[in-house]
Amino acid sequence: MASVRIREAEEGDCGHILRLIRELAEYEKLSDQVKISEEGPRMVGYGLYYFTYSTWKGRNVYLEDIYVTPEYRGQGIGSKIIQKVAQVALDQGCSQFRLAVLDWNHRAMALYKALGAQDMTETEGWHAFRFEGEAMRKLAGK
Amino acid sequence: MASVRIREAEEGDCGHILRLIRELAEYEKLSDQVKISEEGPRMVGYGLYYFTYSTWKGRNVYLEDIYVTPEYRGQGIGSKIIQKVAQVALDQGCSQFRLAVLDWNHRAMALYKALGAQDMTETEGWHAFRFEGEAMRKLAGK
Repeated sequence: MASVRIREAEEGDCGHILRLIRELAEYEKLSDQVKISEEGPRMVGYGLYYFTYSTWKGRNVYLEDIYVTPEYRGQGIGSKIIQKVAQVALDQGCSQFRLAVLDWNHRAMALYKALGAQDMTETEGWHAFRFEGEAMRKLAGK
Repeated sequence: MASVRIREAEEGDCGHILRLIRELAEYEKLSDQVKISEEGPRMVGYGLYYFTYSTWKGRNVYLEDIYVTPEYRGQGIGSKIIQKVAQVALDQGCSQFRLAVLDWNHRAMALYKALGAQDMTETEGWHAFRFEGEAMRKLAGK
């Protein structure tokens, strides 16, 4: 098993992350949604997270994407990234964190459940909606 | 129809918003998830939004909650809040915005679709997962 260090992303990682975003989009069969153009060398995995600005509900953290490059899978790197996000979230006073997963990605779903996550779509019926492109401009009257 | 002004929330609105959060949780049958205790007078509706920090993908805006108090429904206030969020998102350089809705909330689902949103859970199979409480502390080793 490779020795892995979980650390925050730095500006110099952008090229690596772009490549991983493309790999992830290909894996998710959503390559047509990737509209970025730079290239870069390699990194093992990444997780992007961000916080809400609401202070009255306790803050939430959302994990936007989590990706581990194929040859490094099965070594617990995804779990380590999620654990790090949980630590950062608790340190920042967050009361929960959320992520989204495609229903055919059984491996990821099983991992998140094994780590203690609840499938809000399955248990409470939450659906994710997205506005983009022309619909968004039309909405905004632009 | 009442005259309605859509504006940003201010610190003095926190009490109003807390009351609306409780009303929304009751409507969503999720009152047990509301762990706030302050009280306040009335406001017509609210929408909470926030942005991701990611710069390489283009930024997204997430609309956390949208709520209109019962006696003001059917007057297009929800649409106006969503339109305002779309305007702010485009002004900030965001490429999309997202929101979540419960599958039995047909009224909200129909509105979002009519405004041009795509149901990502229905069309792509996205499920929302949540870590919280003991699961989050266990994950973080705390």
